[in-house]
Amino acid sequence: MYFYKEDLINVIVPDKPDPAAAKVLQEALGGRFGEMRTLMQFSFQSANFRGKAKQYRDLIRGVFLEELSHVELVQTTINQLLNGSGDIGVGSVGESDAPLHIATENVNPHHYIMGAQASLPVDAAGNPWTGAYVYSHGNLVADLLDNLVLESTGVLQKSRLYEMSSNKTFRETLAFLIVRDNAHQNAFAKALETLGVNWAKLFPVPNYDINKYPECRKYVDLGFHNAQFNFRLDPTRIGEIFQGESPSRNKGELKVIEPPQGYPVPELPDMPNEHSPGLYDLNN
Amino acid sequence: MYFYKEDLINVIVPDKPDPAAAKVLQEALGGRFGEMRTLMQFSFQSANFRGKAKQYRDLIRGVFLEELSHVELVQTTINQLLNGSGDIGVGSVGESDAPLHIATENVNPHHYIMGAQASLPVDAAGNPWTGAYVYSHGNLVADLLDNLVLESTGVLQKSRLYEMSSNKTFRETLAFLIVRDNAHQNAFAKALETLGVNWAKLFPVPNYDINKYPECRKYVDLGFHNAQFNFRLDPTRIGEIFQGESPSRNKGELKVIEPPQGYPVPELPDMPNEHSPGLYDLNN
Amino acid sequence: MYFYKEDLINVIVPDKPDPAAAKVLQEALGGRFGEMRTLMQFSFQSANFRGKAKQYRDLIRGVFLEELSHVELVQTTINQLLNGSGDIGVGSVGESDAPLHIATENVNPHHYIMGAQASLPVDAAGNPWTGAYVYSHGNLVADLLDNLVLESTGVLQKSRLYEMSSNKTFRETLAFLIVRDNAHQNAFAKALETLGVNWAKLFPVPNYDINKYPECRKYVDLGFHNAQFNFRLDPTRIGEIFQGESPSRNKGELKVIEPPQGYPVPELPDMPNEHSPGLYDLNN
Amino acid sequence: MYFYKEDLINVIVPDKPDPAAAKVLQEALGGRFGEMRTLMQFSFQSANFRGKAKQYRDLIRGVFLEELSHVELVQTTINQLLNGSGDIGVGSVGESDAPLHIATENVNPHHYIMGAQASLPVDAAGNPWTGAYVYSHGNLVADLLDNLVLESTGVLQKSRLYEMSSNKTFRETLAFLIVRDNAHQNAFAKALETLGVNWAKLFPVPNYDINKYPECRKYVDLGFHNAQFNFRLDPTRIGEIFQGESPSRNKGELKVIEPPQGYPVPELPDMPNEHSPGLYDLNN
Amino acid sequence: MYFYKEDLINVIVPDKPDPAAAKVLQEALGGRFGEMRTLMQFSFQSANFRGKAKQYRDLIRGVFLEELSHVELVQTTINQLLNGSGDIGVGSVGESDAPLHIATENVNPHHYIMGAQASLPVDAAGNPWTGAYVYSHGNLVADLLDNLVLESTGVLQKSRLYEMSSNKTFRETLAFLIVRDNAHQNAFAKALETLGVNWAKLFPVPNYDINKYPECRKYVDLGFHNAQFNFRLDPTRIGEIFQGESPSRNKGELKVIEPPQGYPVPELPDMPNEHSPGLYDLNN
Amino acid sequence: MYFYKEDLINVIVPDKPDPAAAKVLQEALGGRFGEMRTLMQFSFQSANFRGKAKQYRDLIRGVFLEELSHVELVQTTINQLLNGSGDIGVGSVGESDAPLHIATENVNPHHYIMGAQASLPVDAAGNPWTGAYVYSHGNLVADLLDNLVLESTGVLQKSRLYEMSSNKTFRETLAFLIVRDNAHQNAFAKALETLGVNWAKLFPVPNYDINKYPECRKYVDLGFHNAQFNFRLDPTRIGEIFQGESPSRNKGELKVIEPPQGYPVPELPDMPNEHSPGLYDLNN
Repeated sequence: MYFYKEDLINVIVPDKPDPAAAKVLQEALGGRFGEMRTLMQFSFQSANFRGKAKQYRDLIRGVFLEELSHVELVQTTINQLLNGSGDIGVGSVGESDAPLHIATENVNPHHYIMGAQASLPVDAAGNPWTGAYVYSHGNLVADLLDNLVLESTGVLQKSRLYEMSSNKTFRETLAFLIVRDNAHQNAFAKALETLGVNWAKLFPVPNYDINKYPECRKYVDLGFHNAQFNFRLDPTRIGEIFQGESPSRNKGELKVIEPPQGYPVPELPDMPNEHSPGLYDLNN
Repeated sequence: MYFYKEDLINVIVPDKPDPAAAKVLQEALGGRFGEMRTLMQFSFQSANFRGKAKQYRDLIRGVFLEELSHVELVQTTINQLLNGSGDIGVGSVGESDAPLHIATENVNPHHYIMGAQASLPVDAAGNPWTGAYVYSHGNLVADLLDNLVLESTGVLQKSRLYEMSSNKTFRETLAFLIVRDNAHQNAFAKALETLGVNWAKLFPVPNYDINKYPECRKYVDLGFHNAQFNFRLDPTRIGEIFQGESPSRNKGELKVIEPPQGYPVPELPDMPNEHSPGLYDLNN
Repeated sequence: MYFYKEDLINVIVPDKPDPAAAKVLQEALGGRFGEMRTLMQFSFQSANFRGKAKQYRDLIRGVFLEELSHVELVQTTINQLLNGSGDIGVGSVGESDAPLHIATENVNPHHYIMGAQASLPVDAAGNPWTGAYVYSHGNLVADLLDNLVLESTGVLQKSRLYEMSSNKTFRETLAFLIVRDNAHQNAFAKALETLGVNWAKLFPVPNYDINKYPECRKYVDLGFHNAQFNFRLDPTRIGEIFQGESPSRNKGELKVIEPPQGYPVPELPDMPNEHSPGLYDLNN
Repeated sequence: MYFYKEDLINVIVPDKPDPAAAKVLQEALGGRFGEMRTLMQFSFQSANFRGKAKQYRDLIRGVFLEELSHVELVQTTINQLLNGSGDIGVGSVGESDAPLHIATENVNPHHYIMGAQASLPVDAAGNPWTGAYVYSHGNLVADLLDNLVLESTGVLQKSRLYEMSSNKTFRETLAFLIVRDNAHQNAFAKALETLGVNWAKLFPVPNYDINKYPECRKYVDLGFHNAQFNFRLDPTRIGEIFQGESPSRNKGELKVIEPPQGYPVPELPDMPNEHSPGLYDLNN
Repeated sequence: MYFYKEDLINVIVPDKPDPAAAKVLQEALGGRFGEMRTLMQFSFQSANFRGKAKQYRDLIRGVFLEELSHVELVQTTINQLLNGSGDIGVGSVGESDAPLHIATENVNPHHYIMGAQASLPVDAAGNPWTGAYVYSHGNLVADLLDNLVLESTGVLQKSRLYEMSSNKTFRETLAFLIVRDNAHQNAFAKALETLGVNWAKLFPVPNYDINKYPECRKYVDLGFHNAQFNFRLDPTRIGEIFQGESPSRNKGELKVIEPPQGYPVPELPDMPNEHSPGLYDLNN
Repeated sequence: MYFYKEDLINVIVPDKPDPAAAKVLQEALGGRFGEMRTLMQFSFQSANFRGKAKQYRDLIRGVFLEELSHVELVQTTINQLLNGSGDIGVGSVGESDAPLHIATENVNPHHYIMGAQASLPVDAAGNPWTGAYVYSHGNLVADLLDNLVLESTGVLQKSRLYEMSSNKTFRETLAFLIVRDNAHQNAFAKALETLGVNWAKLFPVPNYDINKYPECRKYVDLGFHNAQFNFRLDPTRIGEIFQGESPSRNKGELKVIEPPQGYPVPELPDMPNEHSPGLYDLNN
């Protein structure tokens, strides 16, 4: 069973609306290598786990639990980027007297038609998330290798998304997730190390220069690239694997630690133009 | 942020393997009205919520938190129905010397090709779950009405699934979920009652006769049809709505209560024929 | 605008339930070459028609109008094949005390989970109908050629479906549709003839032997293979094209005629096991 | 069987081409809550109806018949918005000597590649319509509740679309459909009222201010929000339900009336750049 | 078995990056009538061919073999149009200090998130290619007619794409493919001629004016519209059909000839911003 | 450019029809880890390759070229398993006088409705192949890791399929592909070895016991698990990587060798019941 505290896993840094950035950030939520995929893949691998080597199951489940918070963080970031983007002139190329004219431009129109300027379970091109993304084949080595590809591609895509807008809300969330995906990459690389593999200098993938992502620095200084947050309320064997020297060329020691303190969820105001929420209407 | 304790929300009752039942039970996991849909729909509605009437958001989130446990319960039930189904003769119509011959018969072949006799994010016909199922439109009345349809269809489909096999593992999980979906139906019906609606005798939908579902009886006796489990570790305003007389014709008083005590996750043994897990291989 | 009279375009011949036949007959409703495709394809081609040669548009629209009745006919035939199939023993291979056990066998389980033993917008393999099937490219020759492929494949598939069950309900509807699809094949072949093509003995496709499909005989005797029913309440130019000698090797004269007299829609009784309809419940 | 008269159900008001508006208007045609969905959902619910309470079936079928005209109306509106949009300079941001350069900008490129500047069975993000949208579960209460969500979401989405362009062709069609969807919302709300529900002031959803949609006014003055057009050529029991006081907070009396007089279909000229139609070519 | 020589079937003409053109050109690669469809359709028709009339199978297979080179040509053209498009200012409407800001504008964002400025198996609207496009029904006449529609629609779409950008890289590839699709149209039209059909002046579809496509001229002068390249290393019966007078109104003699000499594949440089390839990183 | 010789890459061993085996074997053709995926993934990775380290591109392309023959081999195997399965009694559970009654049972009905007892681009559950499966991200390490997962999962799935039928046609093709997928696993593992990784005893995945797959033995004796066939007609740098000791725990030396001699394509006879091919009809 799952328990909840209304805290975001990282801070939402305020900046201007940027609906075009929100469109591409959907990839990190509902894309083939986004947070909904990691959430569901690790959920199925945990539940479907066979055999007695439960330290591996507990490792996978440990990452799964964090993905729940990642989904919430990306949903909230997209909402922040969209919020208020419907006013005339915000990001608008032409001129129009239609308040939601922006919805016909370089955005995902469903952000305005379905969501009331809010996140959706789709990718950057508007394709809905699909269960066909999930890999859970019940062979531990194959599952771990696929998880490694998944987390590596997560970092790779996010490092590309980072270059698409200099919006601070956008970049802060991406920076946090780049560092965390690296920690998860380390988790699965380490698990394969326990089975004999020596990765030499292969990781991190991609081999990014930390100095190009200044927002990442503070999370690295906190050791978040080598840490696994523990969201269990009962004992877990995750530490049997996630310990000792990092499998990454950046080295350091792997440690299971407490989750971050938590950050407030920004308020989303009523949005009368979008009839959201209905209560607004009823009270008039 | 989300925290976890390795406890199932309900008991798994042992019985023989029944892979044909596992095939249809997938509807309750990855179908258009299954637990992955409720999980994701309420996740998006919670995160995308606008305005100050947060008692409604907390109600939706409260149900969302329970759906996390429902996903785990249905995954585990499907695994139990599949486990050991690959031996010659189990449910096999013809004769064959091929150990997994059952996989070509009245089952979902992916249960044997992808999952190693394990659950998948698909429906009873094998179609992958899709993000296009999620309804989160940011208008409170519309969202609540859709949630009511979702929970009502959940009960309706499960009452039909129940008739498809007399397997005890299968029926116990369905019975628990029928009662819980009824509680969630009551939650959203009650929320609309606070906005003025009087439902008369419309609910529950469908208007089933409890005596036809003997496994449901004990959960009704426990009051689970009028209860909302509280998975929050911090304060919640859910009780402002989920209280007073039930909107159902079966009446009773709505109460927010503690979650069940929790039940053990059955062990899934190594399955060498399916090369699951890989560790099995490596140790030989 | 469209007007309606509650009459089926052909008779429903009673026979035993045959849910496996219902499963494959879905291809003729929601498949890539089924009636939903012809309906929507001709609807889009009619609405999107450019230029003054409206005799071609009226031909396409004329076929479109009949497809509305075909959709209704196939829906009703599937319902008839499913109706009552849930009782123990009907088509059941094994033994079970579960009333809907049949739903786990050689059927589409959604016929019992979603539809209450009723038709669905999917194909024989359970894939939902998709708008990607529709061809409407605005080039008259290309559109007509594609329509010819569509109607030819319609006959081809139905002649194969015909061999899959000897159920009379199933075969009568298929026989009627085989003859009508042939008439529509003639319509589009004739339209291309007006642009200069000489088809020699190419049609009908496939070149079936009418004696193998005894149910077809009476429709051929009525001249239905060379007739186009007129569902217009106002003038139409369809007769400028659909006239003169048939482009098929079977020859005969093309004629626009009145629609059939109409046939009654069979009653579908209450089905308490499936909670259908809800009224049944409320009245208890 | 279905009969046709070449009349649109509402007028097409001329204005400039607006292909970005055409892109988003696709939602009202091929989207999850668009006219193809309502058409098909009510078609399946009508054909699959069980039991003797046929006044409900006739109500659903009555709305279904109108949706046929709505599909035609939205197809025609999209065509009007696209027609002539391919000339250089129309809505073009940059400069180009390529006549269809607009197709690479804020539009659906398939409007130019597949359709010859014509409508498609897709939504605003370009996703094809899918049969998975259709809800027809055979439980009357569940079906009616889902229909209510469908029509409410139809109005909600259209009220948002309305804000995306001030183009008159675009807004007139939306205004008509907003009022008609409201009438259909009333139809299904009333049907549930006959089963005992009291809606108080819940409807219309969303609770829009009619003064914000000046084009709607004339349709409300005509009483179209409380009327159901009768497209039956034979008797129908729809009036047993659609009568008496409106379930909406705007009150008024529900009445079954004759359909509108009908409006001409605008001519779509030859479009040589798109090779549409082929006849144009052949005559050169 | 298949053998390969690293030569493109046509030249890549250099020009500036044009990512909006790359977006729409995806239709010719991963669209419903693109090169992946022709490749797979003819592959399945060849492998599934029944009966002794293998001259038809060899004709279909002959076209299939060329489609392998077409896929490679379109992939390479898209790469050329994307290559270097990520620098600030290239095609950028607004101003931004984000190097990949272009990815949020009139492009397919997946070209930058998944591909490192490289081609994808999707269409112009970003929908993934699907096996549901393939037509292989095992009836020779139906298969040939569908192939004719496929190749005709290929030319039609490409003649529309051609008008969307004046970029030389884009137009040269399209011009070559228009002429080759015409040859393939002739191949399938001729095959049906051997079964008796007389096409009169129906082809080519569309009936384009060669003078509007100056880049096509040289390929027509080389006779490529009436030629079939032979990629077989063993005997083939293709020449039994592909011979004699062209079925097109442009006449000429059909001939099986040697493939073009081949053209070099342009080098794609390292792209550090996209972390492509990984080797770049490792060597630092 | 690609050249062809009509030779299968391996022998088709004759046995009885087995349409249920054909259904599940579709996974190896059109499934998420089937031959169409490997074909397209390596095609895109080859064409999209960036930078000067072309030995890696040539390795990927080398595997791609073999996948063309694998697609042909699996198509042909499925056809062999289906061929003649339509006669009464073949695999039929009940009794029926309908010649294609088998199509309603434990098979893919599309094998009889679309294909005339022939292969389709779909997976074992009937889902069409989708371009969303393709991984081509332009980062060499990520691409190689994903290729390793792809080939490993290929072997894993095929080792499970192998257990589903003892049909000799079925098992021989699977055995050949298991050994070849192992060679490709070695290719990508070796490529990562050149970047520093030491795999220890991780591969092959799964760690199968060769003695359980007697049909594999002869291919291992031929050294096919450590060989890469060379289908290039011009020089290739593949040998710079594919050489030296195998990265697998089974050791041996990696060698680039000539392709197999080739095997004949079995004749598929006319199938009048399925109207295949059309020529059959025309000659009557």
